Amino acid sequence: MRAVIRRNRQLVCDEIAELEPGEGQVLVKTLACGICGSDLHALHHMEHMIELGRRGGGGGDNGFDPTADTVFGHEFCAEVLDHGPGSAKALKAGTRVVSIPATLTPGGVELLGFSNRLPGGFSERMLLSEALVLEVPNGLPTEHAALTEPFAVGFHAVAKARTDANSVALVIGCGPVGLAVIAALKAKGHGPVIAADFSPRRRAAAEKLGADIVLDPAKESPHDRWEALGVPKARAAQQMARMMGAGFGRPVVFECVGAPGVLESLIEAAPAGAQIVVAGVCMETDRIEPSIAVTKEIELSFVLGYTPEEFAGTLRSLADGEIDVSGLVTGRVGLDGVAGAFTALGDPEAHVKILVEPAS
Amino acid sequence: MRAVIRRNRQLVCDEIAELEPGEGQVLVKTLACGICGSDLHALHHMEHMIELGRRGGGGGDNGFDPTADTVFGHEFCAEVLDHGPGSAKALKAGTRVVSIPATLTPGGVELLGFSNRLPGGFSERMLLSEALVLEVPNGLPTEHAALTEPFAVGFHAVAKARTDANSVALVIGCGPVGLAVIAALKAKGHGPVIAADFSPRRRAAAEKLGADIVLDPAKESPHDRWEALGVPKARAAQQMARMMGAGFGRPVVFECVGAPGVLESLIEAAPAGAQIVVAGVCMETDRIEPSIAVTKEIELSFVLGYTPEEFAGTLRSLADGEIDVSGLVTGRVGLDGVAGAFTALGDPEAHVKILVEPAS
Repeated sequence: MRAVIRRNRQLVCDEIAELEPGEGQVLVKTLACGICGSDLHALHHMEHMIELGRRGGGGGDNGFDPTADTVFGHEFCAEVLDHGPGSAKALKAGTRVVSIPATLTPGGVELLGFSNRLPGGFSERMLLSEALVLEVPNGLPTEHAALTEPFAVGFHAVAKARTDANSVALVIGCGPVGLAVIAALKAKGHGPVIAADFSPRRRAAAEKLGADIVLDPAKESPHDRWEALGVPKARAAQQMARMMGAGFGRPVVFECVGAPGVLESLIEAAPAGAQIVVAGVCMETDRIEPSIAVTKEIELSFVLGYTPEEFAGTLRSLADGEIDVSGLVTGRVGLDGVAGAFTALGDPEAHVKILVEPAS
Repeated sequence: MRAVIRRNRQLVCDEIAELEPGEGQVLVKTLACGICGSDLHALHHMEHMIELGRRGGGGGDNGFDPTADTVFGHEFCAEVLDHGPGSAKALKAGTRVVSIPATLTPGGVELLGFSNRLPGGFSERMLLSEALVLEVPNGLPTEHAALTEPFAVGFHAVAKARTDANSVALVIGCGPVGLAVIAALKAKGHGPVIAADFSPRRRAAAEKLGADIVLDPAKESPHDRWEALGVPKARAAQQMARMMGAGFGRPVVFECVGAPGVLESLIEAAPAGAQIVVAGVCMETDRIEPSIAVTKEIELSFVLGYTPEEFAGTLRSLADGEIDVSGLVTGRVGLDGVAGAFTALGDPEAHVKILVEPAS
């Protein structure tokens, strides 16, 4: 079967071995699979990513070798083709499914998209675990079901935020992660959400997903908005407000950029007592001024991924229409178009999300 | 009256103007005042400290000029001498009191020890606010009452930790801040507390305050202890343990060193999901690897100071004998000895806490 393979830090279309479903596994046909920002980074820097992950004691990559062939793709919607032995066969052939990108094998858990043994979604077919697949409900379109994974990242980040009834949320960066955070905040009924991005296209997407205030940080600092929304910025002013009985919600900032320097800019500009949920993944060494974070009692909550329950909840939110993701898929390519799509995604004005459709 | 003044980055004994209690103020005689690590740092680097504080939007220093004369000292026990006009005079002359180091004045709040207008505790007398002073209860010795302030820092740090019934706590650094954290953890009835310090003297103090495991990081990594205490370190192992129904408490690390590089060493070595409460104040730019913190879902909670309630609670804990601070005061000096004491405190083996007794 055909797949797009990362080989020598390039993407090549080539044939890979056919898959045979093992015990408890489901053979599926890939219908659509999104290209993630982490794929763009991994194309050139996967060796460094894996090294950092191992320094962090990750230990969940089952001996993955980043220098060997890899088929990316972890944001997929697929169709059941066949079952392996010993499976319950609960889902008939033709059923559309999504899954967290992990497949249980006798040798351990393979992370789809970051495995040498099993292909991710940039291939015609995949092996999933019957225990982990979820049927796509309510006739949710395939292109929207494929957004379950990136939107689950946003639901998880919001679940890690300790917001309260009066909290004001600021989302820095409206790429796919920031948009998913905005969607999750609004699905939860969260009050004022400020969103900031340099790109007009991304700002438009943030507005469509329900952000209350959307602004261009080249024109105004999003941090100028806190006080008008009732949140004093300085610690002394907050103490004074509390002494006077003025209630204000906890400020929460979502860092969805993942570039060096952003964290320190937020430590300096966010209100005292702010929780900064770090959902953007900065792959370089970064510098901070701890004493400023101390002065302000800042909390940095680094978050990653989602739980299986959050993934399932995100699928339900999409299927119930709680989140309107129409218009977010801005491009579709076949396997031959993947390399070009990686290049196109370098321009934030060009695209929000590109789906790979291996059968097309 | 006499005081020790920071002038041109040196400590000099000199005469300063007598104090006249204003409305709502109490004139007190300083009985004892501890030398804090922040005093040691401020002697040479106060200009930089204040600049960083202002970059953090601190705003609570009431226009403090770090280049002008300052009388340090914010960890004090004092004796009531007289009251200003319009005060309730609830405390008779001779009553021993402590207070958070802040005095309300018509011009704003003066932070004692970091003020150009009012002297801190390295002076014969001070002006306190009647509304903020607390009588020393239960015959608590003066030298122990003077430890209320530094121990309140530990109670606050522990209050900011989201520990649970099975949490394991690791305290990195057993200087006054680390010791206060250990005391607060044990006063709360917290389970296993691991304490690490290179200094034998500080390790002995940690043990006396109730730390369950005390070790020398030059000989063994404190992070080798997590697994024996039931906390898997890697995220994958934690997920597996939870799937198998194995409960384990949230790992909490207290960073009480405040030197560059410590934070990143903890991000790399602490268990996944750890909360790192940053109570040590690193005054230099520091480097971290955000992607490792993301992989492990680390939470960095920077903390500072205490609330008035926490300060009062710490005084009660000391007076009720919940914390045994005997032996922590390792030196006593008069005003003439302060400069020498600053030098002596540079050696962690020489002292834990030195008190200044201006009347001696």
